[in-house]
Amino acid sequence: MPKRNLFYAQSGGVTAVINATACGVIETARKHRNRIGKIFAGHQGIVGALTEDIIDTGHESPSAIAALRHTPGGAFGSSRYKLRGLHENEAEYERLIRVFEAHDIGYFVYNGGNDSMDTAWKVSQIGEKMGYPITCVGVPKTVDNDLVGTDNCPGFGSVAKYVATSTREAAIDVLSMKQTKVFIMEVMGRHAGWIAASGGLAGIRKHEPPHAILFPEIPLDEVALIARVKECVKRYDNCVIVASEGVRWPSGQFVGRAGVGRTDAFGHTQLGGVAPVLANIIGHRTGFKYHYAVVDYLQRSARHIASKTDVDQAYAVGEKAVNLALAGEHAVMATIVRKSDKPYRWTVGTIELRKVANKEKKLPRRFVTRDGFHITAACRRYLSPLIQGEDPPPFRNGLPDYVTLKNVRVRRRLKKRFDVAE
Amino acid sequence: MPKRNLFYAQSGGVTAVINATACGVIETARKHRNRIGKIFAGHQGIVGALTEDIIDTGHESPSAIAALRHTPGGAFGSSRYKLRGLHENEAEYERLIRVFEAHDIGYFVYNGGNDSMDTAWKVSQIGEKMGYPITCVGVPKTVDNDLVGTDNCPGFGSVAKYVATSTREAAIDVLSMKQTKVFIMEVMGRHAGWIAASGGLAGIRKHEPPHAILFPEIPLDEVALIARVKECVKRYDNCVIVASEGVRWPSGQFVGRAGVGRTDAFGHTQLGGVAPVLANIIGHRTGFKYHYAVVDYLQRSARHIASKTDVDQAYAVGEKAVNLALAGEHAVMATIVRKSDKPYRWTVGTIELRKVANKEKKLPRRFVTRDGFHITAACRRYLSPLIQGEDPPPFRNGLPDYVTLKNVRVRRRLKKRFDVAE
Repeated sequence: MPKRNLFYAQSGGVTAVINATACGVIETARKHRNRIGKIFAGHQGIVGALTEDIIDTGHESPSAIAALRHTPGGAFGSSRYKLRGLHENEAEYERLIRVFEAHDIGYFVYNGGNDSMDTAWKVSQIGEKMGYPITCVGVPKTVDNDLVGTDNCPGFGSVAKYVATSTREAAIDVLSMKQTKVFIMEVMGRHAGWIAASGGLAGIRKHEPPHAILFPEIPLDEVALIARVKECVKRYDNCVIVASEGVRWPSGQFVGRAGVGRTDAFGHTQLGGVAPVLANIIGHRTGFKYHYAVVDYLQRSARHIASKTDVDQAYAVGEKAVNLALAGEHAVMATIVRKSDKPYRWTVGTIELRKVANKEKKLPRRFVTRDGFHITAACRRYLSPLIQGEDPPPFRNGLPDYVTLKNVRVRRRLKKRFDVAE
Repeated sequence: MPKRNLFYAQSGGVTAVINATACGVIETARKHRNRIGKIFAGHQGIVGALTEDIIDTGHESPSAIAALRHTPGGAFGSSRYKLRGLHENEAEYERLIRVFEAHDIGYFVYNGGNDSMDTAWKVSQIGEKMGYPITCVGVPKTVDNDLVGTDNCPGFGSVAKYVATSTREAAIDVLSMKQTKVFIMEVMGRHAGWIAASGGLAGIRKHEPPHAILFPEIPLDEVALIARVKECVKRYDNCVIVASEGVRWPSGQFVGRAGVGRTDAFGHTQLGGVAPVLANIIGHRTGFKYHYAVVDYLQRSARHIASKTDVDQAYAVGEKAVNLALAGEHAVMATIVRKSDKPYRWTVGTIELRKVANKEKKLPRRFVTRDGFHITAACRRYLSPLIQGEDPPPFRNGLPDYVTLKNVRVRRRLKKRFDVAE
């Protein structure tokens, strides 16, 4: 078999461990010099392929690549750009083929969430429908944990560990303070409540915080929430709430109003997400002193408190993707397969991309308590293994020592430029 | 000398290491059984003394006390209650004497910030002006780092490490994302910019984030800020901002409006602090996509990323306070004395409480760059030693394993109850 080049790219929101996957891809590909020529990375995901903005990872030392394992963010840049259907924008696919041909790319490894698996699937069709020989493999990545076909998604375990740890720590603080009665922490997960659920791991016994979790899957009952807050303050002296950014009212409207571009009747932009809105409502209804936190990017970039299980799995799916590509497995995604809960045992597997693309795995109702405010024992059994183990990065001068790659670009071979409309 | 009992209490906002100080106090006091009888702790600071709500730490095992060293929050509860002047509310001081007499308290060790050192100083006057024999020692604690007479305050180093680490991590995330251009992280420090300044440690070279720091000491120049944001996005593709909650407009008004009780002309409560307000302004003026984080209690409770230097110093001032009390040093506070920057060497010292009470140490102008948006090399030299070293807590089941004390109360000896008006 002739040597061909590999193209790897990162897509969608980045995570604390997507670079661990990149490390797994590159280290594994480097072991197969006889089959894989150059290992390229797209700058900013698929956009790098379309615009021929391609990084040659061959310029990076083995130690720099190894350091990706403990470095958060997307080392090659990421993008939320989504390919349209083959018949809607054939020019894009033709462009991809031109770029792939120009750089002799025979392996396409795409690392992302459900939108990105759709992109990977569409690229895989190039081979089948447009006659360009390419082996296309998806690698799962999303803090939202909402990909189907895999037991869990690399990236999620570390957010879960961060959210559970932060909830536990902030709750100890709240409990210490005589005056503060309500604390709300807003976390990610616009459509699926997996991240919010992970906050539930902070406490074990009934009285331990968090005292309420607000999921996007459960319409928010304001009366029940206020009652719960009052009851918790009475019983435990405070009420700690973990709220998903995707919580909605029974009408379907998001509780957190978007920060950009939304204005009220008077032309003032509406501020804030869920936490300030909820804090405001609870403060008004109860008179309790409150605090709130919005962790935003911190939760998904906190490599310093990553889950070792998550790091190991992120690396493993990267390794698996290359092995799948070399085995000629086309249009598939590497997966995590759970073999047992306790002791937790897992392995890597495979699923067809078309079964994953654009699908969303929400938190099942059986993972939420009947009252809608907490996680069940079944949920705990599922989540707990994913946050096990610590894998701190090296520290230097008191701070995590993260790598910055050289990201040397490959010389452009195509005369024609291609603009990506966004 | 007869044995007398010791009363320790935690005051003001808690920190990741105030319990390490408690550990230093209790472990040291336990070594002096011949001089110190019982070691009491006030529930919720001075309020515990006034209401005779007193914990006997003698019920806690040596391992539970040792675990305080790695447990955030205030194990005995804290309060922001402030004693009024001796002549304004003599009843309070008489009550304190009654409680101290009833429990044979001869040593008063008070752990807090500048307000709390005022309380400690006022309590010390009981001995002098009201004839009750008590040795009164203050122990510094504040994330704000604004106490005078000590080179730095235990509690600050760990927040600084958290803020610098989180800034570095979030900035890597922002840099990875093609679409997000502005990221704002709101941190504590209503009157002094020490915490905001610590965000500056995240980057070393000029282009490295954060690209702007907003201090309470520097009135916010909106035009200059917008210009800086635009310039950074042009040069570095994004702009990362660390903003103190205490940033003010040139008029003196806080940029972040208080969340509680403030309503606009239409009766709606104004939401949010600095980050959403700034994000809103920057979004409007530049059109850039932004994200923001509000870390609130997380920054001061994140024991999992505490500075080892900070933990060591927190313990050392607790130890020192007991030794001062035993030496009969009255109305003093234990301090941290810096002996050299590089290598960093420090020791513990002493200062009179009256020199510390109610004073505030702001960030000196020479620690801020001329343009007002960053820290100078001198500031870096001061801050850097304080975040050195890691001291992770033990983990259990994937989460930090923090101790909860039994907090067994002492039987009340006074018939009369005392209500604390707040």
